[in-house]
Amino acid sequence: MSSIDADPTASWLSREELDSARERLPILYVHAVPVRVDHSGTVTSVGLLLRVSADGIINRELVAGRVLYHERIRDALLRHIEKDLGPMALPRIPVSPVPFTIAEHFPTPGVTAYVDPRQHAVSLAYIVAVTGDCAPQHDALDLAWLSPHEALDPQLLIEMTGGHGVLLRQALAHLGHAV
Amino acid sequence: MSSIDADPTASWLSREELDSARERLPILYVHAVPVRVDHSGTVTSVGLLLRVSADGIINRELVAGRVLYHERIRDALLRHIEKDLGPMALPRIPVSPVPFTIAEHFPTPGVTAYVDPRQHAVSLAYIVAVTGDCAPQHDALDLAWLSPHEALDPQLLIEMTGGHGVLLRQALAHLGHAV
Amino acid sequence: MSSIDADPTASWLSREELDSARERLPILYVHAVPVRVDHSGTVTSVGLLLRVSADGIINRELVAGRVLYHERIRDALLRHIEKDLGPMALPRIPVSPVPFTIAEHFPTPGVTAYVDPRQHAVSLAYIVAVTGDCAPQHDALDLAWLSPHEALDPQLLIEMTGGHGVLLRQALAHLGHAV
Amino acid sequence: MSSIDADPTASWLSREELDSARERLPILYVHAVPVRVDHSGTVTSVGLLLRVSADGIINRELVAGRVLYHERIRDALLRHIEKDLGPMALPRIPVSPVPFTIAEHFPTPGVTAYVDPRQHAVSLAYIVAVTGDCAPQHDALDLAWLSPHEALDPQLLIEMTGGHGVLLRQALAHLGHAV
Repeated sequence: MSSIDADPTASWLSREELDSARERLPILYVHAVPVRVDHSGTVTSVGLLLRVSADGIINRELVAGRVLYHERIRDALLRHIEKDLGPMALPRIPVSPVPFTIAEHFPTPGVTAYVDPRQHAVSLAYIVAVTGDCAPQHDALDLAWLSPHEALDPQLLIEMTGGHGVLLRQALAHLGHAV
Repeated sequence: MSSIDADPTASWLSREELDSARERLPILYVHAVPVRVDHSGTVTSVGLLLRVSADGIINRELVAGRVLYHERIRDALLRHIEKDLGPMALPRIPVSPVPFTIAEHFPTPGVTAYVDPRQHAVSLAYIVAVTGDCAPQHDALDLAWLSPHEALDPQLLIEMTGGHGVLLRQALAHLGHAV
Repeated sequence: MSSIDADPTASWLSREELDSARERLPILYVHAVPVRVDHSGTVTSVGLLLRVSADGIINRELVAGRVLYHERIRDALLRHIEKDLGPMALPRIPVSPVPFTIAEHFPTPGVTAYVDPRQHAVSLAYIVAVTGDCAPQHDALDLAWLSPHEALDPQLLIEMTGGHGVLLRQALAHLGHAV
Repeated sequence: MSSIDADPTASWLSREELDSARERLPILYVHAVPVRVDHSGTVTSVGLLLRVSADGIINRELVAGRVLYHERIRDALLRHIEKDLGPMALPRIPVSPVPFTIAEHFPTPGVTAYVDPRQHAVSLAYIVAVTGDCAPQHDALDLAWLSPHEALDPQLLIEMTGGHGVLLRQALAHLGHAV
């Protein structure tokens, strides 16, 4: 999970209220795997955000964030992509609300492949083609575009913490890239 | 949405806390369309619960309910199916967590095809084959098994309120039954 | 199924060979439901081709056609969309090869919801956003854009023969439009 | 692709006719990934067939085979699973015809992740829970049950030729197992 807490105005709960809810309810998220495509819809590259974590480590991350009260999933996707990739990314939000996977993050390791120490988060994950100019925003240092083959590097996937490596591999498998 | 409030012990929040969260956060639900199948996986009938609403009207409903804190989606499905269809229903919970649709219920009509005056509820919807004996529980009067053809009756679908008719038609379309 | 036979050069089999294969093998097709979307990916309209059948009746149809030897599914989609909607339609071919449904057409009525008297055709069906100028080609008279609500008209769906009405309703259901 | 040629009576074409069609048309296949599940639908193990190839090498394979003329996809799945795993395997054929992926095999390497030197084969791939006793048939030596974790072994996946390793990894990713 990423820096959803960076923008307090994006939340309709106070910090204390959100912390309280996080101990009581599954929290709904969206994840987006940004991709570039050619005219036949073939994915030519995958976009990964480079962020510096609180302890100074550079992480590669997908786009992720919380769905707000009274916000459609497609609007949450749009908001988080624009927040992370800038207002000119021109994402093509999928026509169907069916995600390619559901990532269930538990505070306890071992329940699923996803862990989030802060909360029980259920994320709907989508692959989103972006067609405009991407400019990483806020705490992201850069946006790296990798070919599907490069993105399958096991070392890269293991280093992507917070479940982002698992989700990236699931996305690539869904696209037909698996070895 | 159905009688999720019938069993207060199923909630890890007090009634007041849940009411408060419902005004602030999207609440995660599951819906299940119970079906009977033959040996080739062809759906032979669809199960609908008959419930009496607070104002004495008999409604046909699908299985539905909230996902609790630290509960896997598949465990929530299992719990709600057993709650509504009894402990001998022997459901075959799908192997993949990908739902056939996401039903976004808003308190305001017109945002999507789904309305829930009480809350913003996001439901992951699954078709679940049941192989055992189904005995409606709690406030359900009966369980009616309809052929896919009977379940496509426009009058029936319109009478299924709370978005259950929309969801049933989506499930039938996903199964290949559409006219 | 549509006028795939209109362009003999598109086939790598002679007419006699194709006729012979059609009596012996399932033939692979693609169907496309052309849609217009807004910036959030919401479908605002659905495109239907108006064609005159051999007996002078005007039919509303989806885009459809055969997958050729050594042709990728995404290239077949692109080719048939350009063939029917013109070279400036600018379709966004889906990133994933997973269709929203598989339409199994049998020469014998009653096996599935789809009938094709000429052959056993298995079609992979996709919803494809088009962003450019559409100009119906060949034997299509016009392209009609309907809102999702208009496209759900039962009379319209029944009049769309060859399984196109069934498939359109399945597509609309997949998009969340069902009543 | 597997030993579909082992049973000539399963084909409605002569060997010569089928060979001819294979040079002219995409041939429709199904693949099945056999799995064992617990009561919550969680996959506990994956079944792999051990076969001796023509040159004496032992291969691990999934269930696969051709869809015949006038055969439903679900009947083709059932037939190939019973052919490979025996008549008591008791498979639960999925209720929906939507596959978890489409595997496009080309005779030319590099078009997709799948190669089949004999033909252009388009395969619809399903994950199928089996609940009975599996006894490998015909040319299969044994059936090995691996945990999802064991099945993710990169060495195993690379050794599974004919695209079976790619497809197995895609299936595991679809189930939420990816690292």
